[in-house]
Amino acid sequence: MEYTTSGLSTLDRFTRANLINSLSGFKSVSLIATVDKGGRTNLAIFSNIVHLGADPALVGFVNRPREAAPHTIANIEATGVYTINHIHADILEQSHQTSAKYPEGVSEFDAVGLEAEFPDGVIVPYVRQSRIKYRLRLKEIIPITHNGTWFVIGEIEHLVFPQEIQAEDGFLRIEEAGSLASLGIDGYYSASPIARLPYAKYRP
Amino acid sequence: MEYTTSGLSTLDRFTRANLINSLSGFKSVSLIATVDKGGRTNLAIFSNIVHLGADPALVGFVNRPREAAPHTIANIEATGVYTINHIHADILEQSHQTSAKYPEGVSEFDAVGLEAEFPDGVIVPYVRQSRIKYRLRLKEIIPITHNGTWFVIGEIEHLVFPQEIQAEDGFLRIEEAGSLASLGIDGYYSASPIARLPYAKYRP
Repeated sequence: MEYTTSGLSTLDRFTRANLINSLSGFKSVSLIATVDKGGRTNLAIFSNIVHLGADPALVGFVNRPREAAPHTIANIEATGVYTINHIHADILEQSHQTSAKYPEGVSEFDAVGLEAEFPDGVIVPYVRQSRIKYRLRLKEIIPITHNGTWFVIGEIEHLVFPQEIQAEDGFLRIEEAGSLASLGIDGYYSASPIARLPYAKYRP
Repeated sequence: MEYTTSGLSTLDRFTRANLINSLSGFKSVSLIATVDKGGRTNLAIFSNIVHLGADPALVGFVNRPREAAPHTIANIEATGVYTINHIHADILEQSHQTSAKYPEGVSEFDAVGLEAEFPDGVIVPYVRQSRIKYRLRLKEIIPITHNGTWFVIGEIEHLVFPQEIQAEDGFLRIEEAGSLASLGIDGYYSASPIARLPYAKYRP
């Protein structure tokens, strides 16, 4: 099957969204927790999370246009901190449910039945049920002018994971903690290791 | 296990890179093919690819600092077009091998044994062996000043996939074409579907 730009434009909006969103491949899917200035919590599922570098430890994510998804980005601007929490199968339905539109004043933590935990007194919570999670401090928000989205960049300042999933060289076997991947708008996947390959060298 | 910023700074460079790079979760891994102004091909494996939006159909990827990875970004700037090609297990070793440093003038296509195909006369090739692939036109290159990386944004103008993997609603079951995910610097994974979940609604 083949599409060009003009072929894509003939697709209805939902078909096009499903196709384009799955074309770019498997994604990291996680819950982003934030608080507003008054400490009211917000929790939302995000799948466009990308590693930017290890030193400094930078992670970026894409926030949809503010009209569609105002709270996470506004809270991050207000407080400068947020957490990213991996999802496993036992909390998948609750995690997906955070994408519903809740009224002002309703925290998704309460609405979906996940618990906020504040392990070290920082204002922004982790998701207690999540097994791999990290806290970031905002570095920069870059507007993507072509479609009104935002690329939010933060530096990791705290992280938690089950010790038994870490290899000697630092690598985390996140599948052993049940961490999921996503595909498209609404597809969720488990992952199985095939290989870790050695550093590639030129072979004349 | 728990780390803070100060704990991370005590790790050796490789352990830190493996840890931080796997923390952000499963990634889309693909081959990016480019050409220079003279039509000389280049092929490189990238794993930080992110969906930005379906209409316009925008995809971003992170290019490492130019000193470390000069060719892909320079070719994209020169020609404005590039292709992203999914990887399956049969071409995993060749795909990983593209990350080696080849001398000027050596095309990774020839060096690793993958074939360039030019299905519609456009200057930039697809990887013939890849089953899901798409061509983009450069929209913008955004510098990430915090670590010297680059966020490259393109619009999809052509795409190819096996018809039998497409659901009626447009979604691509890319696992049926064997598309892989990656984790960290050197981990490769296959993925198995758990669920597609319905659009989440507020339930008072």
